[in-house]
Amino acid sequence: MNEITDLLARGPRVINVGLESFAEDLERAAVPVLHVAWAPPAGGEPRKAALLADLDTDQVAEANREALQRLVEAQPVLVDCRPAREAIGLTGRVVLHAGPPVSWERMCATMQAAILCAIRYEGWAGHDAAAHELVARGDVHVEPCHAHGAVGPMTGMITPSMPVFVVENRPRGNRAVATINEGLGRVLRFGANDDGVIDRLRWLEREAGPLLGAAIRQCGGLDLRAIMSQAVRMGDEMHQRNIAASALFGRILMPLAARAASDTSAAARLAEFIGANDQFFLNLAMAAGKASADPCLGIEGSTMVATMARNGTEFGIRVAGLGDRWFTAPVNLPHGLYFPGFGPDDANPDLGDSAIVETIGLGAFSMAASPAVVRFVGAGGLADAVRLTEEMAEIALGEHPHFRIPILEERGAPVGIDVRSVVATGITPLINTGIAGKTPGTGQIGAGVVRAPMGCFEAALEALALPAAHSPDPGARKSTIPDQIR
Amino acid sequence: MNEITDLLARGPRVINVGLESFAEDLERAAVPVLHVAWAPPAGGEPRKAALLADLDTDQVAEANREALQRLVEAQPVLVDCRPAREAIGLTGRVVLHAGPPVSWERMCATMQAAILCAIRYEGWAGHDAAAHELVARGDVHVEPCHAHGAVGPMTGMITPSMPVFVVENRPRGNRAVATINEGLGRVLRFGANDDGVIDRLRWLEREAGPLLGAAIRQCGGLDLRAIMSQAVRMGDEMHQRNIAASALFGRILMPLAARAASDTSAAARLAEFIGANDQFFLNLAMAAGKASADPCLGIEGSTMVATMARNGTEFGIRVAGLGDRWFTAPVNLPHGLYFPGFGPDDANPDLGDSAIVETIGLGAFSMAASPAVVRFVGAGGLADAVRLTEEMAEIALGEHPHFRIPILEERGAPVGIDVRSVVATGITPLINTGIAGKTPGTGQIGAGVVRAPMGCFEAALEALALPAAHSPDPGARKSTIPDQIR
Repeated sequence: MNEITDLLARGPRVINVGLESFAEDLERAAVPVLHVAWAPPAGGEPRKAALLADLDTDQVAEANREALQRLVEAQPVLVDCRPAREAIGLTGRVVLHAGPPVSWERMCATMQAAILCAIRYEGWAGHDAAAHELVARGDVHVEPCHAHGAVGPMTGMITPSMPVFVVENRPRGNRAVATINEGLGRVLRFGANDDGVIDRLRWLEREAGPLLGAAIRQCGGLDLRAIMSQAVRMGDEMHQRNIAASALFGRILMPLAARAASDTSAAARLAEFIGANDQFFLNLAMAAGKASADPCLGIEGSTMVATMARNGTEFGIRVAGLGDRWFTAPVNLPHGLYFPGFGPDDANPDLGDSAIVETIGLGAFSMAASPAVVRFVGAGGLADAVRLTEEMAEIALGEHPHFRIPILEERGAPVGIDVRSVVATGITPLINTGIAGKTPGTGQIGAGVVRAPMGCFEAALEALALPAAHSPDPGARKSTIPDQIR
Repeated sequence: MNEITDLLARGPRVINVGLESFAEDLERAAVPVLHVAWAPPAGGEPRKAALLADLDTDQVAEANREALQRLVEAQPVLVDCRPAREAIGLTGRVVLHAGPPVSWERMCATMQAAILCAIRYEGWAGHDAAAHELVARGDVHVEPCHAHGAVGPMTGMITPSMPVFVVENRPRGNRAVATINEGLGRVLRFGANDDGVIDRLRWLEREAGPLLGAAIRQCGGLDLRAIMSQAVRMGDEMHQRNIAASALFGRILMPLAARAASDTSAAARLAEFIGANDQFFLNLAMAAGKASADPCLGIEGSTMVATMARNGTEFGIRVAGLGDRWFTAPVNLPHGLYFPGFGPDDANPDLGDSAIVETIGLGAFSMAASPAVVRFVGAGGLADAVRLTEEMAEIALGEHPHFRIPILEERGAPVGIDVRSVVATGITPLINTGIAGKTPGTGQIGAGVVRAPMGCFEAALEALALPAAHSPDPGARKSTIPDQIR
């Protein structure tokens, strides 16, 4: 038989690319068909497609390889806990907040309330009105955590007297800090503003912080990557679920803390505080995330995201190839499950530096490691958890060699968000998040997920393509179809 | 069309039951076929099939429902830690060992060495020869742990001065005890016999035990089921992997222990000891297992296994419907992975009371919860872990409502081994186990899995069928095909 008669004898076997309805018609007619989901890059929009084509160069690929390598080879080690004043030289009247820069006027009420409370905690003002006036007069400066080598969850408050964990990225020597997680209930990071909040902050400053610092310095550093790697195997995605990491951290820390404590009561109080807080490790994961991602900033040409953060008003990203520049867009409202008595109408828009954990492949990127968390999304089964991690893999440059997910047969978490892939696929990073009440002082009202807004990535794409458009050698460009969909 | 022409028009659709080769032939001929794996009960052996038929009664089903319910409704709570002398009234010169009763002469060398060391620890003899003479003269009694409300891992040594964890099964008030896990290295449970072993036992007796006891009594009891349920979700199967349970236990215990400690050094030593031992929780899981399973002993007619234990010579089971009676068969050799420098020739035969955790649905029965452990089996992927749990489900009466496995979409661990199903299917319980060196004092040389020998189950089946055979009303018997294969 020749090829044609051979083909007719066997009947057609079809691979359908693109429009799914063609495949559905064939399926109805019982013709075997393999459907390949494909859409033109960036929804077929010519300008974006052209920018993506401009950025499809060997130089970009090489820069991204370097950026991803720096990110996944990071080895965050907890080396100290001491006041922000000493740790990051935070002097004068400064309050740090989460997310990209934002003026007082544009801040959400929850962040404003937290700032007033932080000012009272420092003793710069005795009441809210006086605190507000200090900000209005410019006698208290309000600046982003990220501008000071720091990260903070939700409102992200850091002031000079607050003890911070100091995390050093051993291969490169850079450091990042985060506050001690305050625990649950009425807490500063959710915009609570009363004397109970301040009492807890004082205990952290006067007893817990110094004791943690003494314990950590005693051992020469705690390998956080080892804890994180183990915790991913134990069901933590380290944004909404940190129970394994918190328990593993506690069992390493407590012998050191007991040895460093002046008396058994102080050791008992610290053990109780850490043991009662399943999210204790979140702040450590965040500092580890920043210490890991920061060295990627400044790798020329790289389209990898090195920071994601939200201030309750805007979502901001920073990109490895574009240094300290923020690309922002209005934040979305998280959706998820609410505590009894609360609903979506009570929710504050997306908030906090904690999206740094998604930036390094944890959180929603590791949803498959933590099926318990996927329930906050809605349907919430195992298959959904795996599907979400697979979706994030579509916008990631690689897999994390240290964060391996048992349910995916030990494959690594998707890591290294590529701005190009986000724009090309229309898939924005998913973030696991706590939900704050929008009425200041309400505290946490639920937990859920939120999408990063596409606007940041589109703006970053424009900026990334700018030098390429002026490239002296356009011949260096490759095909017009970007890597991730070929 | 009539039915016959209709059938011919559609072509045959076949369900093949039993011999797989028939299905294979059809598959080769491209005829759609669904194969059902089926074999006659007990390999078609008439006598066993008759015994199984005798035991297929409503009374047995009802007794098993009651036994399973008692087992899974158990709520083991850790209420104390104090010397075995006080906790279980272990007075005089008695050494308890793991597994069913065994005479000195028939014991493996590893257990003999441990007994001599235990006698020296108690100060009843100054050296091994004198210790041996005490046993030979009957001046030291050697009895099974299970006969004294206790369980012990590997050699299972318990003497009057050793502190034991006391676990109370809240709904029924019964108690069980287990020693404090000694940690790694040269330890008594692996038959090490030197002064270092005794020093560690003394520290447990004089500092750790009393401190643990004071801490536990302070809080009125620690809910072990809650810890175990959480740990199963975190990758522990609680026989070979106890890292989550140990860390979760530590974080509850340490505030209490720090408060109870006379000084910070004692608290630090305890925190260090617990924190450095990933298997610390094993002994607690074992005591919880015995406290949960013991109330099932004595439920007339029940064919559910309530104890599995090994003494290095014999594997023994006890069955709910048959009270304290042991049914034994020679133990198998475990197979698995060996530490560098060791191999199968160095392995001691299967040893320890720890198979109580399989009896309550953990260990190898929960392999799917703990894919990391399945590597000890050989191939060792996720699919193997799931397959092994599914295999154990074939001999289990139900699923555990509190031990739920995320990877199985929250289904419960298979629990409640039915002697009938073991004999009918030919599937014997799989046990995850540490492997001891057969040369006394070598310690642990590897970890792996071992099968319970079929002989125990066949002997138990005979004993269970005995009253049924004399039943005054044979009409009460149901079909001749037992439940589990219908």
